[in-house]
Amino acid sequence: MNNNWQRKHILSLEDFTVAEYDMVLSTALSFRSVLQSKTKKVPALQGQVVANLFFEPSTRTRSSFELAAKRLSADVLNFSPGTSSLTKGETIMDTVTTYWSMGANIMVIRHSGAGVPLNIASQLDKLNSGVSVFNAGDGMHQHPSQGLLDLFTICCCLDADNPRISLLEGKKIAIVGDILHSRVARSNIYSLLAGGAEVHLAAPPTLLPMLFKETVNSKYQERLFVHWELKPALEEADFVMTLRLQKERMSEYLLPSLREYHQLFGITHDRLKWCKPGVKVLHPGPVNRGVEISSELMDDANYSLIGEQVTNGVAVRMALLYLIGNYKG
Amino acid sequence: MNNNWQRKHILSLEDFTVAEYDMVLSTALSFRSVLQSKTKKVPALQGQVVANLFFEPSTRTRSSFELAAKRLSADVLNFSPGTSSLTKGETIMDTVTTYWSMGANIMVIRHSGAGVPLNIASQLDKLNSGVSVFNAGDGMHQHPSQGLLDLFTICCCLDADNPRISLLEGKKIAIVGDILHSRVARSNIYSLLAGGAEVHLAAPPTLLPMLFKETVNSKYQERLFVHWELKPALEEADFVMTLRLQKERMSEYLLPSLREYHQLFGITHDRLKWCKPGVKVLHPGPVNRGVEISSELMDDANYSLIGEQVTNGVAVRMALLYLIGNYKG
Amino acid sequence: MNNNWQRKHILSLEDFTVAEYDMVLSTALSFRSVLQSKTKKVPALQGQVVANLFFEPSTRTRSSFELAAKRLSADVLNFSPGTSSLTKGETIMDTVTTYWSMGANIMVIRHSGAGVPLNIASQLDKLNSGVSVFNAGDGMHQHPSQGLLDLFTICCCLDADNPRISLLEGKKIAIVGDILHSRVARSNIYSLLAGGAEVHLAAPPTLLPMLFKETVNSKYQERLFVHWELKPALEEADFVMTLRLQKERMSEYLLPSLREYHQLFGITHDRLKWCKPGVKVLHPGPVNRGVEISSELMDDANYSLIGEQVTNGVAVRMALLYLIGNYKG
Repeated sequence: MNNNWQRKHILSLEDFTVAEYDMVLSTALSFRSVLQSKTKKVPALQGQVVANLFFEPSTRTRSSFELAAKRLSADVLNFSPGTSSLTKGETIMDTVTTYWSMGANIMVIRHSGAGVPLNIASQLDKLNSGVSVFNAGDGMHQHPSQGLLDLFTICCCLDADNPRISLLEGKKIAIVGDILHSRVARSNIYSLLAGGAEVHLAAPPTLLPMLFKETVNSKYQERLFVHWELKPALEEADFVMTLRLQKERMSEYLLPSLREYHQLFGITHDRLKWCKPGVKVLHPGPVNRGVEISSELMDDANYSLIGEQVTNGVAVRMALLYLIGNYKG
Repeated sequence: MNNNWQRKHILSLEDFTVAEYDMVLSTALSFRSVLQSKTKKVPALQGQVVANLFFEPSTRTRSSFELAAKRLSADVLNFSPGTSSLTKGETIMDTVTTYWSMGANIMVIRHSGAGVPLNIASQLDKLNSGVSVFNAGDGMHQHPSQGLLDLFTICCCLDADNPRISLLEGKKIAIVGDILHSRVARSNIYSLLAGGAEVHLAAPPTLLPMLFKETVNSKYQERLFVHWELKPALEEADFVMTLRLQKERMSEYLLPSLREYHQLFGITHDRLKWCKPGVKVLHPGPVNRGVEISSELMDDANYSLIGEQVTNGVAVRMALLYLIGNYKG
Repeated sequence: MNNNWQRKHILSLEDFTVAEYDMVLSTALSFRSVLQSKTKKVPALQGQVVANLFFEPSTRTRSSFELAAKRLSADVLNFSPGTSSLTKGETIMDTVTTYWSMGANIMVIRHSGAGVPLNIASQLDKLNSGVSVFNAGDGMHQHPSQGLLDLFTICCCLDADNPRISLLEGKKIAIVGDILHSRVARSNIYSLLAGGAEVHLAAPPTLLPMLFKETVNSKYQERLFVHWELKPALEEADFVMTLRLQKERMSEYLLPSLREYHQLFGITHDRLKWCKPGVKVLHPGPVNRGVEISSELMDDANYSLIGEQVTNGVAVRMALLYLIGNYKG
């Protein structure tokens, strides 16, 4: 596997290089074959400790990281904020340094505040801790492992034996839904643009402000398009990525009703007719059936890559834990 | 160990055959000697993932399954519904397929709704998932591993070196308590009748309706007896199984008071004099001391098999996980 | 490693002998080098089950015990009281015997009631269970592993290659803060006095009653001093141990305000000038920054041993689990 990995933390896809994307994709491919083997485990991180610090709860993502770490033979510590000393007045950084002192080598951090993992990583670096920080979702900022598993899923769909980011060249990919609040969308935009795809965003204006594009810090911005209607985003699209709609958005007056949202932006078999033949649909989960996507489409294996995304999530997280766990600063 | 096991899921004892009961008993016996060895672990399920999905909380049963899985060298994922995406509007089946996609091989499911594990199993089969479902208690329906560990405990009591279901032939077994709401009773009735025992149920009429017998779908129903008094059930009994009394039943007006219940149906040293000499008492736990059973009797090792039941629970669950984990459809 | 360890349970430091302290220190030193090795794990407790029964929640201490147990290759069961059968009316002792029957070899118990672990240990002994009980903090009584990791940290500071309790001979150690309610202070007082140190307690009278000394059952009481002011405790001190201040104490009218407490008893760079050059500061964590200790001092590696304490916590708990796990009664 790759020896020339040069990144200690996984914080954001904003500055990922094409070479890095390809390293992740090829390493994930190796681990996917480990997962299909009989033993399913490798001793790659034996003796290392992965601490899951989920300040914002998420069973699904935590389980995926936990399984990835266990299959690399790491020891896993789960931190549950409900019963933590945070309620006792400790700062987040004190919690983090405690886990470092205890022996954690990698900290997987989810937090509702954008930038918290980055801030933790830079403080841990100042302390020469040697600890790697893995952002598992920070506020509306980034969710890099989701972006990379989506990338891996799309690239495997285009060439199962040799997934590489250049496969995205010239593809049209639609991202539909609550773009404004989505860390998933923000991660995907960077990886898809870096791969040469055209990225078309579609959402009602309250969830996709006119100035959204200005906030995207990519040199490939000219391939990023904003739509307040579904059709222009879906026309001739190769892939459609739907996003989870937080029901809280309605009480914030950003949405009229879930029913109206589905009528305007929900993805259905019918609407996929606008796309290229062979179009595939992704969703980061958990899905609101009948809102972002129709229940029938979600369960249609001819179109849906949702199950693949979950399976690939373990392989991609194994790859990333492996790469940062073996990085020698 | 047994190669001719033909069951992929453990859902109910209703249709278990004598051959299957004996396979479970002999496999559990092997694992009990593993537990008494120095190493205590076998690599039987190495690389396999057991997901404990407890939609209804239970530390005791979850710990027993977790330990059984770990001693078979499986990786264990615990799902905690409190912090789950269920609160985010996902269906149970979406949660289940997510864990399948993540790589779970066996799902241990506890749910307050009768039939939920069966429904999940049939949907997973339709998807050709290869996942085994293990019902760890569904509503008032079934709790098969409890039934099998009770069976193992009774049979070991009758012949420690060769527990087999035919040992029940001609034995009289009383089940006392809240039969109506008990999935434990429903599982035990099937196994005990299949083994040739006479099963005598005793409870106040509110907890044991006259028509209860009609709901039992066993060809051996003629050996099932219903009593609204304790004495006829206990007379000459070989084993007395007591059930946990949910204190909620009082607020539902099904019970006058715990004190009165204990006076009429509580098991004590005195009342055991009605039984055969050498009678033994079982309880699935947790016990309300002084309600279902007197505190003194519970702690009397001459009568109580309660500790044995817990110990055997790990061996029986190892056996069942082993059998379904190695079943090739 | 040591074969002449004679203690089955770790309940209190009150009756620890000098030989026992030294055995713990030398065993912990061995494990600290295991932690610095590449593999970080030893098979010392393979097949053994460590059950963490934390009736009072504590992520930090539970993680430390969990990691210690995993690095000894034990299987770990975590008991979460929130979802437990305790709410179902079971006694603590019934929960404990259930875990014993399930196969637990060591039970790590934290409880808000002083004496609960001792009581459990003596009941388990009466049952000839063979189970070891490890007190992880009981009410205001004892927290022996904290006392021993503090001792190890201080002794390593005095002689990193050969930590032994006699190094404390003639040292002056101040313990500052909420002595009255602190199980940490109670454990530390016994170990420090046994090692030959002078122990100076400092706190406001509400947190350090005049008669406190009478409650300390050590033959070395003449080396224990009580102060209601900070200065006499700190003058010429070699080590300063600060204690966590429970904010609840204010609502109990034991404290005027956190600000005033910090002005009178908070440890700062300035106040350390009263101490010996080279003085070091300890705190059991989690810290209220700016209350017990100034934020700057806490982060100053020239003075603070707080990170060391956490790291040593894993090594000391490994040592103790190893010693009791291999004790043959």
